[in-house]
Amino acid sequence: MTSTHIAIAGAGLTGTLAGIRLARRGHEITIYERRTDPRSSVHHEGRSINLAMSTRGLDALERAGLAETVRSTGVPMHGRMIHTRSGDTAFQPYSTNPAHHLLSVDRDRLNATLLDAADSEPRVELRFDHKLVDFSLRDDTIEFEHLGNTVIEQHPVVLGADGAYSAVRTRMQRVDRFRYEQDYLEHGYKELTIAARTDGSPAIEPRVLHIWPRGGHMMIALPNPDNSFTCTLFWPFGGPDGFETIDTADEVEHIFARDFADAHELVDDLSGQYLRNPTSSLVTIHCSPWHSGGRALLLGDAAHAVVPFYGQGANAALEDVSILMDTLDSCNDEWEQAFATFFATRKPDTDALAELALDNFVEMRDKVASRRFRATAALHRVVHRLFPRQFVSLYELVTFSRTPYAQAVARARDQGRRATQIAVGLSIALVLVAGGVIGMVSVWN
Amino acid sequence: MTSTHIAIAGAGLTGTLAGIRLARRGHEITIYERRTDPRSSVHHEGRSINLAMSTRGLDALERAGLAETVRSTGVPMHGRMIHTRSGDTAFQPYSTNPAHHLLSVDRDRLNATLLDAADSEPRVELRFDHKLVDFSLRDDTIEFEHLGNTVIEQHPVVLGADGAYSAVRTRMQRVDRFRYEQDYLEHGYKELTIAARTDGSPAIEPRVLHIWPRGGHMMIALPNPDNSFTCTLFWPFGGPDGFETIDTADEVEHIFARDFADAHELVDDLSGQYLRNPTSSLVTIHCSPWHSGGRALLLGDAAHAVVPFYGQGANAALEDVSILMDTLDSCNDEWEQAFATFFATRKPDTDALAELALDNFVEMRDKVASRRFRATAALHRVVHRLFPRQFVSLYELVTFSRTPYAQAVARARDQGRRATQIAVGLSIALVLVAGGVIGMVSVWN
Repeated sequence: MTSTHIAIAGAGLTGTLAGIRLARRGHEITIYERRTDPRSSVHHEGRSINLAMSTRGLDALERAGLAETVRSTGVPMHGRMIHTRSGDTAFQPYSTNPAHHLLSVDRDRLNATLLDAADSEPRVELRFDHKLVDFSLRDDTIEFEHLGNTVIEQHPVVLGADGAYSAVRTRMQRVDRFRYEQDYLEHGYKELTIAARTDGSPAIEPRVLHIWPRGGHMMIALPNPDNSFTCTLFWPFGGPDGFETIDTADEVEHIFARDFADAHELVDDLSGQYLRNPTSSLVTIHCSPWHSGGRALLLGDAAHAVVPFYGQGANAALEDVSILMDTLDSCNDEWEQAFATFFATRKPDTDALAELALDNFVEMRDKVASRRFRATAALHRVVHRLFPRQFVSLYELVTFSRTPYAQAVARARDQGRRATQIAVGLSIALVLVAGGVIGMVSVWN
Repeated sequence: MTSTHIAIAGAGLTGTLAGIRLARRGHEITIYERRTDPRSSVHHEGRSINLAMSTRGLDALERAGLAETVRSTGVPMHGRMIHTRSGDTAFQPYSTNPAHHLLSVDRDRLNATLLDAADSEPRVELRFDHKLVDFSLRDDTIEFEHLGNTVIEQHPVVLGADGAYSAVRTRMQRVDRFRYEQDYLEHGYKELTIAARTDGSPAIEPRVLHIWPRGGHMMIALPNPDNSFTCTLFWPFGGPDGFETIDTADEVEHIFARDFADAHELVDDLSGQYLRNPTSSLVTIHCSPWHSGGRALLLGDAAHAVVPFYGQGANAALEDVSILMDTLDSCNDEWEQAFATFFATRKPDTDALAELALDNFVEMRDKVASRRFRATAALHRVVHRLFPRQFVSLYELVTFSRTPYAQAVARARDQGRRATQIAVGLSIALVLVAGGVIGMVSVWN
């Protein structure tokens, strides 16, 4: 295997992890990032996104020796805490296995951990304030804009880890027959903070993910290590209660008093936060192919951005790196073959995930609060305890295993079918037994 | 109503027709076209695309007083002529109404007719060699590239009639939450010509649309007024018989001898044409919204490019103009309201058409030749003759009426359901009658 000079666009989670792993394989890596080094810039309020890290993401970090650092700064979440309109709460554990939990992680801090690790790799160079403008598919040229100047670099391989609005993908889109879809939800999101109490204790239950399901008008909250919580409003843009309509302090206070009464008093300067913090949109990206021969490959959100409702966006992006490394192992770092294999293997899984994430929005906002959903979830846990190997819930497979997403969906569908068959079988048996009893009773009489 | 200075991007069918109609409403129109005036440039072999014009397109041309000119230069097609592998042919009429036929029209000639008509409108100005680069959504500025120079123009309204690869749409795509999808078939197309015989007579049946359905490997031919035919190969790009594989004269001759034996000898310089003519891809475009307030609107392929298998792409694009004018009537030329209404009304119809066009590919290439398809088509014609008002085939509604596409699909589905109910009712009646007969017979015996 020869060492290759690889350019990675994007110094986010995926780009830095890919850089570290590829450098350790002996390649020379330059990571180009459009923005300034986030470690040196001021933290922006309302942008402190929390991630719900689970098995796929943690396993990918583990392979780079970083899981312990991340675990030590994250907050475990053992289940969902549902807040009803009347202020009642109900707890739903994520798993029957007490060792299974999500980890609430600050995205910026995780990114800084990865950047520090990349910095300490001798074969990785980080270049900030470099915006990828264009690259050639015929030779090694890549054009960047750096502080107003055009910079031309030469790298035979380009990885696009530059997120949902990827410049690498935009370049690949100019090729004939590149299939592409960007789909937005009618909903957007906005972040708010619930501070810790003055004595430093948490204002609401720590170590859980809080949900205020109100149909299309949902709020969630994830815990931080300082006992504050990062809340996210998922509201429609339009309509009477939408972000575009609710734009005065009075209206914000009114909506909170009505929909999120038990959280209303906990958010300091509620309307100030609401009016200052940006509203962001929720996009799903599908595209095909993810690679251009052995020249360029898309990874993470650039290839398959999903909505956040299964908590898998960052996990899937980090898992991409694990799978790409496994593919490079089996392809002996032959780029074209590895990229084609990676795309063919991974695409059905991220397609399945995109669908799961969209479906789960409906589930989270409408169903988690319903009696039927809670009964089904409880029944699933009972069935899982009775048949722990045969019946594993879809949520468990997606969140606490590395079963490929498409396989997880297929297995859950198959389990559902078998459960129905068992139920039908039991019903028939019951009818036969009852018939026998009635028969015997009538003979006896 | 005040007169507005409107910029139209694209001097194709949609842009010129829209320009003519809007000018006659009293607006001042400038049509900007990226290419040179097609009336002054040499005709390119293998690019002489034929259109199957039907009711929607002809009605739209009629409203501009141009239908007669177009009719006089088109060739009527009364049905499909299916060519089997063995060389047999079977004719399927398009309609039970002998007045209903398609019109095979040369796209370039139709475009020239529209350009001439636009030229003779006092309120229309045509500017060729103007490539739209960008336009502002905040003020009236539009930037063009004209013979290497940047030209800035001012128009308060921009219409994007610049086709599937629309520059107007690319600009609108930069707005947050613009939903966009470009989807390519695995198949492409390539055009070939069957010349008239040396005595000027047609080499195959004139006044029909010829189809050689060979599964994924189809050919069609449309007649021209000079008794030549424009053939189109619809083949996959990849695979053993794909465009990418078949790239020598021997292979071309072999495929034709095998799949299109009865047409093989009719194509002059077959392999020369095949190797010289370009291969084009087949794209479906979905996007939303089609307008940016009252500033910009997409029309035709720019808004909803479809694959050509229902023969409706150009018809739908021209019908857009009719519907937009009706909408402007009802909105009194208030641009924002008209654009929003047009988009909301028209989008479900072009979505329905996109699906019909994709489905019809399967039908044309696989089913038209099948016994079952022919039997069903014949049955449809019988049912339609029996109940001419109640049962109108989907093809008839799409091709020979202006019923909105989505309504046509809904009506066809409803008819299918009612037909099944009638069939079930008849069967039950038959069983009852038969039972009665058997009963009477047994009583008699």
